[in-house]
Amino acid sequence: MRVTQPLLRNRQQIPHAIATVDGERRHTWQQLSERVARLAGGLKALGVQAGDRVGVVGLNSDRHFEIFFAVPWAGAVIVPINYRWSAPEIAFSLSDSGTRVLFVDHAFWHLVEPLRAQVEHALTIICIDDDLPGADALHEKLIASHAEIEEFPNTADSLSGIFYTGGTTGRSKGVMLSHGNHVSNTLQYVTMCGAVDDTIYLHAAPMFHIADALYVYAITHIGGTHIFIPRFEPAACARTLQEHAVTDIILVPTMIQMLLEQPGFKDFDLSKLQRMFYGASPMPEAVALDLMAKLPWVAACQLYGQTESAPLLTALVSRYHTADGGRLRSAGRALPATEILIVDEDGKEVPRGQVGEIVVKSPNVMLGYWGREDATREALRDGWLHTGDAAYMDDEGFIFISDRLKDMIISGGENVYSTEVENAMYQHPDVAQCAVIGVPDDKWGERVHAIVVPRPGTAPEPAALMAHCRKLIADYKCPRSISFQEEPLPLSGAGKVLKTELRKPFWAGRGRQVN
Amino acid sequence: MRVTQPLLRNRQQIPHAIATVDGERRHTWQQLSERVARLAGGLKALGVQAGDRVGVVGLNSDRHFEIFFAVPWAGAVIVPINYRWSAPEIAFSLSDSGTRVLFVDHAFWHLVEPLRAQVEHALTIICIDDDLPGADALHEKLIASHAEIEEFPNTADSLSGIFYTGGTTGRSKGVMLSHGNHVSNTLQYVTMCGAVDDTIYLHAAPMFHIADALYVYAITHIGGTHIFIPRFEPAACARTLQEHAVTDIILVPTMIQMLLEQPGFKDFDLSKLQRMFYGASPMPEAVALDLMAKLPWVAACQLYGQTESAPLLTALVSRYHTADGGRLRSAGRALPATEILIVDEDGKEVPRGQVGEIVVKSPNVMLGYWGREDATREALRDGWLHTGDAAYMDDEGFIFISDRLKDMIISGGENVYSTEVENAMYQHPDVAQCAVIGVPDDKWGERVHAIVVPRPGTAPEPAALMAHCRKLIADYKCPRSISFQEEPLPLSGAGKVLKTELRKPFWAGRGRQVN
Repeated sequence: MRVTQPLLRNRQQIPHAIATVDGERRHTWQQLSERVARLAGGLKALGVQAGDRVGVVGLNSDRHFEIFFAVPWAGAVIVPINYRWSAPEIAFSLSDSGTRVLFVDHAFWHLVEPLRAQVEHALTIICIDDDLPGADALHEKLIASHAEIEEFPNTADSLSGIFYTGGTTGRSKGVMLSHGNHVSNTLQYVTMCGAVDDTIYLHAAPMFHIADALYVYAITHIGGTHIFIPRFEPAACARTLQEHAVTDIILVPTMIQMLLEQPGFKDFDLSKLQRMFYGASPMPEAVALDLMAKLPWVAACQLYGQTESAPLLTALVSRYHTADGGRLRSAGRALPATEILIVDEDGKEVPRGQVGEIVVKSPNVMLGYWGREDATREALRDGWLHTGDAAYMDDEGFIFISDRLKDMIISGGENVYSTEVENAMYQHPDVAQCAVIGVPDDKWGERVHAIVVPRPGTAPEPAALMAHCRKLIADYKCPRSISFQEEPLPLSGAGKVLKTELRKPFWAGRGRQVN
Repeated sequence: MRVTQPLLRNRQQIPHAIATVDGERRHTWQQLSERVARLAGGLKALGVQAGDRVGVVGLNSDRHFEIFFAVPWAGAVIVPINYRWSAPEIAFSLSDSGTRVLFVDHAFWHLVEPLRAQVEHALTIICIDDDLPGADALHEKLIASHAEIEEFPNTADSLSGIFYTGGTTGRSKGVMLSHGNHVSNTLQYVTMCGAVDDTIYLHAAPMFHIADALYVYAITHIGGTHIFIPRFEPAACARTLQEHAVTDIILVPTMIQMLLEQPGFKDFDLSKLQRMFYGASPMPEAVALDLMAKLPWVAACQLYGQTESAPLLTALVSRYHTADGGRLRSAGRALPATEILIVDEDGKEVPRGQVGEIVVKSPNVMLGYWGREDATREALRDGWLHTGDAAYMDDEGFIFISDRLKDMIISGGENVYSTEVENAMYQHPDVAQCAVIGVPDDKWGERVHAIVVPRPGTAPEPAALMAHCRKLIADYKCPRSISFQEEPLPLSGAGKVLKTELRKPFWAGRGRQVN
């Protein structure tokens, strides 16, 4: 089980099928596999050895894709970098992982100088674009000037990549994923969600994030075609879906909302789109309903997982992705070869319907955190990955995610799950975006506070929103205070609302860990 | 990755779905998983410990199925026995593997005394049926009188089963398959061939053989329903397919021929049948065409593999399973996460279209042969499984099996692949069955000889059959001699023609190894 093995297979079986399309550039699997093996030769010539870490900071592109395979082909370990991070945050992950070779594209070229200054060791910078000043090497030149090398004989247990989670210097952790993790994730994904070799997949979500990276591996494995746009933008996404007759895509819920709500959306011909996956953050029910209403022929599927499990744990496949029965709020059921239990603080399984922590056994589960044996021991206990996510399971094994444990609000001794409150808030027509957090309160310990971005042209009253909530959820869960802002909520690279950032001003100088 | 894990999953997600149906008996996944955990408790009470081998000799049944899971649940290793073997052959496999506990059903109860006499150690015999004289324990009583025990914590590398290949005492080898072998085989199978949780599968081929055992694991993994008939019989098979609205089945080609050619076949309602898989021996093209003609709504799929790879290596999926293009003679393409090369005697890849030996890298590949380090080293070289099968690969990675290397005839220095000659013979309307073997010849070294079972009411002339062949294949490949017999050709438990047996009389006292 190696992530590079499908390149050999595709070269053997479908050498002339299209592997990648990026604007005017397209490569067959024959060409792609040659480019990867040459780029790997170039890396070796730069001194990259087996086990060395090689980073990437770049927008989505076919070249970015090639790096995902050239690095393990050379026996090295890829470190995909979240490009929304600040230079010090990126510098931390490069120093922490000992990444000495870094691919950078034009969009992030301004980071080169600060990174050279801030990273603890010298960096060899490879420019993904054709030429930019200060590069030590160029992606295309490495390919042009090196012969193909043999694929490195990785095994299932070999380290394949280090994916950093979080984004706050102090606690960002490098998740070590093996070749076997990615391949078993792929096989379980296809077994549960289906995919065939005529899949045409659009990389619109950022490839550095495991939610899209999973498709870098999976679509390659099944011999489908990869299409790229540099970054998600609603019109470009819709246009590319139409132009390339895309069949499959993953987006985060905020992207789906932007895609569906853009002006002129109904004029795009998306009749070839077959499957839309979403995950990485909670899906407001209103957006799911809008998706089913506007693209009724598309099989919608919610995926749930985390970087530590490469990433998939559950899927709500399209046959259960229906408005009736209340399952639309579920993240679905465990993938085959994946075990999920909901446990209490002592690790004992709780009765169905009761909220506890999700713990997992799966061949997808990471090797551990890079250089963080303490954190690894904390996350992997007795063979179970502790996800830090709170959820309950119904009688048929469907998982309902309540919240990240760290986003849970404890107010007057009651647990309040922020996503439940947000779901209620989103049902108000004036609410465009909403995040619910716990803020310090002398009486209740924490107070339920909502931050709302109103829809343009509306000016909702706090009292009206609170009254709206009380009709939907228990009184103690309803926001006690609401603040409004016009600018969109801060998002992580994966499209998750950065509650850490939102909590900071409220908790400055106080005891609570905000992240 | 453990073969028993899906029981936990099905009990969690689909406790009330039907797991097994055997005549009047049916069990839900809740009941089935309880029975398995209790039977495992019974085994433990009988002294079975982790790593111990437990054998089974029995027709297909729901209880036989339970044994497949109770044994690993208790941490032990299952040894499925080919019930077509003679008592000395079975005794050899039990002695060789150190199997001290053996399940036997009524159909093979006559073997109990000879086995007790011939096996090197004492045997504890568990009767699969309700009661038979001389049993040390009864299947149902073990379940009734023991509480559920915890699932043994096997891992992907734990030994799960020993499947004996061959059937000749001297060289029968125990193939050691791990839990990970079976699970990765399942995931690759579903990824390539598709299957969903409403699959209803009929076990008509013998469960002791890896071709059907693969479905014991795979259909359990996806949460489908298992139906059983004791053994393949054309009318019973058709009737059960109809009665239980079976969706999926695997048969060997001879069984398919018998199924399709039985009187009154067209009166059965097989409209629910969706997929028919076949494998384990070469498919005569005429039978494949008959299958497509008589069951045009069924997706036919050829599978190729061997016990040593748990078992799947390639599949000719239904979209390529068509009469045009010449692909019907292909065994299809490598499964995902499976690498196949065609190599010469030095292990070097041969050009496409040239015959060589199939070698394989796959997570399905066995741990080795039980107690046979020499044979293991011979089969597994530099990480590649040497299959002993001769084949060529076309430009798109489709594999065309020429022959077992040991069935290849070398006549006057030319390689003749017996299956190619048989395919030509089968196209003659008077040929019901045919096997082509090499027999000693003073001039040519080996001579191509055909053994033919004529269709009832016909009496084909050797000269006419030879002339028929010369129209289809090169002269040197055509049989130089033909013998006729009325009784069917001897078949192995897997439905393969036993060429070893056919060769014996010709080679008695000569140098060639006949098997």
